[in-house]
Amino acid sequence: MQRYRKDGDCTYALGTELSLEVLKRRPQDVLSVYVHSRQKENDIFHEVLSLCHQHSIKVIRSDKAFNIVNAKENCYIMALFRKFTNPIVRDSNHVVLVNPSNMGNLGSIIRTMVGFGIYDLAVITPAADIFDPKVIRATMRAFFLLRFSLYSSFEEYLKENSDRTVYPFMLDGKTRLQDIRRQQPYSLVFGNEAVGLDGSYQQYDSVFIEQLDTVDSLNLNNAVSIAAYEFNKDKVK
Amino acid sequence: MQRYRKDGDCTYALGTELSLEVLKRRPQDVLSVYVHSRQKENDIFHEVLSLCHQHSIKVIRSDKAFNIVNAKENCYIMALFRKFTNPIVRDSNHVVLVNPSNMGNLGSIIRTMVGFGIYDLAVITPAADIFDPKVIRATMRAFFLLRFSLYSSFEEYLKENSDRTVYPFMLDGKTRLQDIRRQQPYSLVFGNEAVGLDGSYQQYDSVFIEQLDTVDSLNLNNAVSIAAYEFNKDKVK
Repeated sequence: MQRYRKDGDCTYALGTELSLEVLKRRPQDVLSVYVHSRQKENDIFHEVLSLCHQHSIKVIRSDKAFNIVNAKENCYIMALFRKFTNPIVRDSNHVVLVNPSNMGNLGSIIRTMVGFGIYDLAVITPAADIFDPKVIRATMRAFFLLRFSLYSSFEEYLKENSDRTVYPFMLDGKTRLQDIRRQQPYSLVFGNEAVGLDGSYQQYDSVFIEQLDTVDSLNLNNAVSIAAYEFNKDKVK
Repeated sequence: MQRYRKDGDCTYALGTELSLEVLKRRPQDVLSVYVHSRQKENDIFHEVLSLCHQHSIKVIRSDKAFNIVNAKENCYIMALFRKFTNPIVRDSNHVVLVNPSNMGNLGSIIRTMVGFGIYDLAVITPAADIFDPKVIRATMRAFFLLRFSLYSSFEEYLKENSDRTVYPFMLDGKTRLQDIRRQQPYSLVFGNEAVGLDGSYQQYDSVFIEQLDTVDSLNLNNAVSIAAYEFNKDKVK
């Protein structure tokens, strides 16, 4: 049992719901499940135990383990699992985050994009660590539905994912979001929380979300939500 | 100098931008301005000093004061100001938050709604304290453009603000957001982060934001952003 390390091979699903999700979707990657003495003997707990038994996953009863990962209140079950790859698909729609720095934002963006049916996320590094337990927790289970790939530059991303319409979101974008003719497959591209995207992204079909000038611009998380909503609202599900 | 108190008469604008904003918009309410020894002698600092001088506001140089309010990094100027009232306007469009509990969410929602041109916020108590310095800071200056009123129930709110279309946002709302015929003046109503709105709100024109069932619903902040965007995107400014 050890603290999470960015350069390590494993990470943690914190909490009962998230542990159950990784046990259902990626049992082959789960190494062990920790249970706190305060965990109640309820249905969801028995579902966890049964999945562990079925896949021969070790169940460890320990309260100390939860201190080590700095788990928040009400986290009485957690699963240690191997970091896995699940790369993005070339002809799908993508969200591209250029150097996102905030872990809570990253997790929340994943939750929202998957909720609107965009399953593919490209992250341009340097960036917040997508495998950090805090990011995974903030996705509220969407993490296990997501495909994701890391690239060291936008050019590298584009080389491997050509033949698509690139929509960079910029304060001085050319077209209002609601006026965009949404061509598929698309890439919705967003810059870092503090600095946004640089002028070089104007060569693509840049977009802006119209707001009053009197206040500071939308935060990243809200901007991605609005874009994901607008690009997906005409789909019949 | 003392910690912020919910039942006190004063609160703090933390940081240079926010202090400047309250000095410009409500100088009559500012009691004193604190300056940390690390504050640089830059233009914005001189603007603060000049406004203080102009309105005979005391400038106090003290580093300790910043510990007392738990100011975060890069907060070297703060303004102590009287809590003020700036009640909502009856025939405007409103956002109504029923028992919002998270201060960061509340601040971020204020920033976003004002950015989309909705200036009036009704809060149904019990709720997070709108005057908490953390809330004000999260609004990124939008706080000083906002009109707001507290009510002890939705019925009380509606009694004082009748003749409007009420759009409660609910997971089982009747109409998709994009299909709503947006009638003014309107009230966009959102429930608490954990429990949402109860079934009694179905008597109004309830709305849902369509998402996949596979993940948990949008967080409150994102839901309000998307709604504020959709209700205001056809306005010509």
